[in-house]
Amino acid sequence: MATTIKEKEEVKNTGFSSDIKSLSHRFINQDGSLNVSFVGKRKWQQYSVYHQLLNFSHLKFLLIIFAFYTAFNFLFAALYMLIGVNHLSGVIATSRLEEFSEAYFFSSQTLTTLGYGRISPVGFAANVLSAIESFMGVITFAIITGLLYGRFTKPKAYIQFSKVAVIAPFQEITGLMFRLAPTKSSIISNLKASVTLSMNVETDGVFKNTFFTLPLQLSSIMTLALSWTVVHPIDEDSPLFGLTKKELQEGNLHLMVFIEGFDEGFNNTVVARAEYLSDEIMPEYKFVPMYQYSEKLYHNELYLNMINRVVKVD
Amino acid sequence: MATTIKEKEEVKNTGFSSDIKSLSHRFINQDGSLNVSFVGKRKWQQYSVYHQLLNFSHLKFLLIIFAFYTAFNFLFAALYMLIGVNHLSGVIATSRLEEFSEAYFFSSQTLTTLGYGRISPVGFAANVLSAIESFMGVITFAIITGLLYGRFTKPKAYIQFSKVAVIAPFQEITGLMFRLAPTKSSIISNLKASVTLSMNVETDGVFKNTFFTLPLQLSSIMTLALSWTVVHPIDEDSPLFGLTKKELQEGNLHLMVFIEGFDEGFNNTVVARAEYLSDEIMPEYKFVPMYQYSEKLYHNELYLNMINRVVKVD
Amino acid sequence: MATTIKEKEEVKNTGFSSDIKSLSHRFINQDGSLNVSFVGKRKWQQYSVYHQLLNFSHLKFLLIIFAFYTAFNFLFAALYMLIGVNHLSGVIATSRLEEFSEAYFFSSQTLTTLGYGRISPVGFAANVLSAIESFMGVITFAIITGLLYGRFTKPKAYIQFSKVAVIAPFQEITGLMFRLAPTKSSIISNLKASVTLSMNVETDGVFKNTFFTLPLQLSSIMTLALSWTVVHPIDEDSPLFGLTKKELQEGNLHLMVFIEGFDEGFNNTVVARAEYLSDEIMPEYKFVPMYQYSEKLYHNELYLNMINRVVKVD
Amino acid sequence: MATTIKEKEEVKNTGFSSDIKSLSHRFINQDGSLNVSFVGKRKWQQYSVYHQLLNFSHLKFLLIIFAFYTAFNFLFAALYMLIGVNHLSGVIATSRLEEFSEAYFFSSQTLTTLGYGRISPVGFAANVLSAIESFMGVITFAIITGLLYGRFTKPKAYIQFSKVAVIAPFQEITGLMFRLAPTKSSIISNLKASVTLSMNVETDGVFKNTFFTLPLQLSSIMTLALSWTVVHPIDEDSPLFGLTKKELQEGNLHLMVFIEGFDEGFNNTVVARAEYLSDEIMPEYKFVPMYQYSEKLYHNELYLNMINRVVKVD
Repeated sequence: MATTIKEKEEVKNTGFSSDIKSLSHRFINQDGSLNVSFVGKRKWQQYSVYHQLLNFSHLKFLLIIFAFYTAFNFLFAALYMLIGVNHLSGVIATSRLEEFSEAYFFSSQTLTTLGYGRISPVGFAANVLSAIESFMGVITFAIITGLLYGRFTKPKAYIQFSKVAVIAPFQEITGLMFRLAPTKSSIISNLKASVTLSMNVETDGVFKNTFFTLPLQLSSIMTLALSWTVVHPIDEDSPLFGLTKKELQEGNLHLMVFIEGFDEGFNNTVVARAEYLSDEIMPEYKFVPMYQYSEKLYHNELYLNMINRVVKVD
Repeated sequence: MATTIKEKEEVKNTGFSSDIKSLSHRFINQDGSLNVSFVGKRKWQQYSVYHQLLNFSHLKFLLIIFAFYTAFNFLFAALYMLIGVNHLSGVIATSRLEEFSEAYFFSSQTLTTLGYGRISPVGFAANVLSAIESFMGVITFAIITGLLYGRFTKPKAYIQFSKVAVIAPFQEITGLMFRLAPTKSSIISNLKASVTLSMNVETDGVFKNTFFTLPLQLSSIMTLALSWTVVHPIDEDSPLFGLTKKELQEGNLHLMVFIEGFDEGFNNTVVARAEYLSDEIMPEYKFVPMYQYSEKLYHNELYLNMINRVVKVD
Repeated sequence: MATTIKEKEEVKNTGFSSDIKSLSHRFINQDGSLNVSFVGKRKWQQYSVYHQLLNFSHLKFLLIIFAFYTAFNFLFAALYMLIGVNHLSGVIATSRLEEFSEAYFFSSQTLTTLGYGRISPVGFAANVLSAIESFMGVITFAIITGLLYGRFTKPKAYIQFSKVAVIAPFQEITGLMFRLAPTKSSIISNLKASVTLSMNVETDGVFKNTFFTLPLQLSSIMTLALSWTVVHPIDEDSPLFGLTKKELQEGNLHLMVFIEGFDEGFNNTVVARAEYLSDEIMPEYKFVPMYQYSEKLYHNELYLNMINRVVKVD
Repeated sequence: MATTIKEKEEVKNTGFSSDIKSLSHRFINQDGSLNVSFVGKRKWQQYSVYHQLLNFSHLKFLLIIFAFYTAFNFLFAALYMLIGVNHLSGVIATSRLEEFSEAYFFSSQTLTTLGYGRISPVGFAANVLSAIESFMGVITFAIITGLLYGRFTKPKAYIQFSKVAVIAPFQEITGLMFRLAPTKSSIISNLKASVTLSMNVETDGVFKNTFFTLPLQLSSIMTLALSWTVVHPIDEDSPLFGLTKKELQEGNLHLMVFIEGFDEGFNNTVVARAEYLSDEIMPEYKFVPMYQYSEKLYHNELYLNMINRVVKVD
């Protein structure tokens, strides 16, 4: 690493530490989550059950609920069998199994508050059971309503980042650039970008992992209408100034990106994160434009599949 | 375009690009949406289904749900017919069609968990079907509850913009002005306005589309109580300074407006956008006041239908 | 009004205008709403139905829903009568009125998806009606669920203002003061206050209504733990500097207050507004402290009923 | 207390007062609530019922609802008995008690809209009662749905503070430090810390409780990824500069901490508070690091149970 580098604007506000020696790992996983595990707490204590249920896929969520519904009916069918199926008037059964089947479906009709009434509870015990079951049914489906609504409205940042960053000509100098684009048609306003660089820097002959906040050409835009190329100008004050390709590679760079905006579809703040490691930063490459104005259709066209397209700088 | 214009405070933070040559189109459609289309993704991938369902009109939304309800009952009626309508006790029918009708309405009574019980399932197959149907009914109506609540609470910016902007006398000089007013009685606080101008500017004999952030007399107000006339003073530093009517027309102006506020009815941030093109900017016109104090009723009156009223400056 | 007053920091960012001559009226009503009416729109267009339903009292809201429920059942009872009550099997009735009563209660059992089944529809027409009714029942109660939740979660600023402002000694000079306190135990954090004064000021012999932003000793506090006395120091730069009691009275003062904070119970931003007119501003009075530390109970006690208590300055 | 202390950056923006003499009590309770009670309002007026119901434990909440359900059924059972159980067709009972039991379970089947129909109302009085009951049932369960959803989505700051603060070496000087860590895996972004110190300061021979805003090395971080050690550097400008252990003890220190961030799980702002008293501030101690990089698992490990571990500075 260049010894000429002064400690420029060193910062520690990433939430990560410079104490950590080996930096060949990611701080931020590629799905935007953090590469951190908790010790001293059991797994289930780390998660809020509610938030876990929001993060399952739709299919998995429905299967969990259906499994719960099935198990619940089994439990109550067993209880009805226990007090005796003769407390359920209207049961049509010639075997134990058929009795259980009748008790099972009576239970499902009670849990969903369907209540056809062909089978109905007679006597105190069966009535108490079915009163409790229908109460639990109503509560359970109230919970499911809440979970489903929570799933719908959970804001997600519909933002994609380019897989690589480049170091391309910028005005008279060069700039470190990556870009991002919307992935859904819902509009994100008031975007702000913060970029932090972690890099091995030699001070007095010792290499030390150091954090820098990188100044940006533009750190905020009004609307993410097309793609946004975020540019850090590599001027004399930049920690990247004068570094060779080899130094960039050996410097164990971590470019940490934090994006914040207001999603007009969710009407909520959304955040997105990305990280570029040394081998994802390409010097002497530039991005190919990913939008153009269609003279025929009178609107701008954004080519989402071109977000990663780069070409060698001549 | 005047060659005397220096590049004053050029900005690129609109999310739109100065690379685009032809500018005779809108960046922002008149409903506030962006004039951008996505390429490289199928139509349905661009939209979140949930947000689509929120944006339909009330009538369309109800019709979609009712169509779904009808189709669902058809499906299950067909399934009950498949396993044999004799598994439904209580059916009164003398023809295939009447059987289907009975199965259909039994299905609807199951889906809504109504369960009159005149018709009820007997045997394993019919019971399994009706248990699944009532489960799906409960889940579906939980989803509908969520969708309806999402529709109610989706914040909308109840703001209307004047259809034109004017260039009117302002203090000793002139000012570029447009105005906005609330359209509902719910109060919007803490309004902020950002105005960006895109204009063809000649530099070294070449016309180039250039972006300018326009400084405003007031860029924020506490409450949108009456109308708000947003004023950009055309002083010496303004990119509009000294431009003739003809230059304004040929300059292909795009005045892009971004408003942000806190709606006290929705208790959420709301945003609104507008754009004025060259032929929507009227030099030497001024706005007619749209409110007055009623001495009789002891309150201020805001005339919403006068928002576009302008008169020629003498 | 003192002619010595220079135009100090005149502002127009209240959303109200200085064009309005008569100022003996309130800008802000005592419930925090604005004293503005809309002209050019019918009454019902000014309101969002959803927000209207949120603002009714609990009792009124329940009565509206119950009235709707009753009317709905009347309508469907009439429809069942129209197609003939003989399409409802199980009806026990000896008169037209009793038939209607049976149809009415059958309707209510259908709308709520209760479905006892003593009465049940037979034939196509009655089945179609009841299928539609139960569908509408489910949708309606989904809407009610949304409305009720919206009512619960609608953030309200649990803040009360003192009914008067005072001009009391402050450090070496005097200060214009009012105070505010929480009315519920839910905590409000990050409070910010903005205070604007509108006052008749003589310039060149002409009295003109002028707006001033008043600088505050503290314009924000971390938590509204006890009461907060907001102080505008009346130093040489204050528009109130050197004014006599008579001038204050004749100046037609409007002190407009805007408070913004984060309610930790609602987890949302809340806003509150107040206005003090000339005769609600008391010179040479001061507030009596409204809290003290209880040595016995080891906590601070806030006396909410003392918020308006003032005493004459000696 | 050292008389050498000048009044440095005294602030009063904590919402607490410097008038209060005895300071041996907490301002902020250990659960983050405020040590304040309201006088002049009855207990029940201080609380919003809705927010109270959100704050009960899950078990307590369910028991309250179940108790309500049971009581409600008792009430309606009594009403059905009052009008005469003969208005309920299908009742099977040989005693008053059995009649009540049948009425009770009929009520529960009506309230949950189960409606088996073995028992059903006949005649006007019973039908009116059951129509009202089913209406109330639907409304009640709509309310419960809202309450449950409100409970799920109520944002909580999943942050834990170290139980003690330390005064440890920091760069060339010393620093007052405490630390905080996430308690759940949901990510908190954009954290901001405000720290206020209340301390007895001697001025002209009189001890007076004085508030200071403490400048921090870092007052905000992008993400609470690992633990965050908040540091107030004790330089010449610090009110703690040059204080002896004894002075710290006798100064009756109150270190009040306010943390604000954006929880990406709840997608909402969350706030947390803590307070350190004199005997919870340990001079000449330092925190033991609570995270390390696991070479084996390629991720960072955060040891939550080590948050309070301190060692004596050599």
